[in-house]
Amino acid sequence: MMTKENLASFYRDYIACLNNQTWDALDRFVGAEVVHNGKCLGLTGYREMLESDFQHIPDLRFNIGLLICEPPYVACRLDFRCAPKGRFLDLDVNGRTVAFTENVFYKVESGKIAEVWSVIDKGAIEAQLAVRRR
Amino acid sequence: MMTKENLASFYRDYIACLNNQTWDALDRFVGAEVVHNGKCLGLTGYREMLESDFQHIPDLRFNIGLLICEPPYVACRLDFRCAPKGRFLDLDVNGRTVAFTENVFYKVESGKIAEVWSVIDKGAIEAQLAVRRR
Repeated sequence: MMTKENLASFYRDYIACLNNQTWDALDRFVGAEVVHNGKCLGLTGYREMLESDFQHIPDLRFNIGLLICEPPYVACRLDFRCAPKGRFLDLDVNGRTVAFTENVFYKVESGKIAEVWSVIDKGAIEAQLAVRRR
Repeated sequence: MMTKENLASFYRDYIACLNNQTWDALDRFVGAEVVHNGKCLGLTGYREMLESDFQHIPDLRFNIGLLICEPPYVACRLDFRCAPKGRFLDLDVNGRTVAFTENVFYKVESGKIAEVWSVIDKGAIEAQLAVRRR
């Protein structure tokens, strides 16, 4: 099992991989049978989800706000500021820039992300859209 | 600073305090100047928020699904299954039983919770309400 320090370093490298969209390196970080919010996506499905996110949100960037490691778990608060095209999380964002956070947990097994539990702060986005509609 | 083990024990006692609604003991766990999602509630405001939650959700119970400790931080995935009265998170729940999670981070300073970053999975509740409306 990775040490706390190795786990933090592994996670920062994973986030760099996402931000650089170096998808061919994703298998260094994500397990073949990865489960995301209870759904077994596998590496292929996980990559498709991320590629779709970047297509939908051209200026998407993952920013680590807070990182908490207790092997085999990682907890991270991710900060986003981006402009999703069209609908996002069932909301009509339509290219407006919104700021929101994601609180996400990972289980790392055999050196790869095996399971992810993610919650995005949808309420924060709704509040920003409501203000601008006034 | 507390050890990882002490921090986990401290957090479990805090959750027991909430579930038992022993509000007079809350100051053993929560700092006088506690900040919740960027807002300085202080102990009094924090207690009011929790008491209001229990009034609004009579069967509210905090269940620890996953607990990750790296001093001075705690990360927890809380599982809920409860029936909020009326509106909850701006949704017309109206007493229906819903299951949802909260991914929440805490900073513990001088033996008390000093800051909280919480995200509730509102999308999961919306999905449950939508299914039942069909």
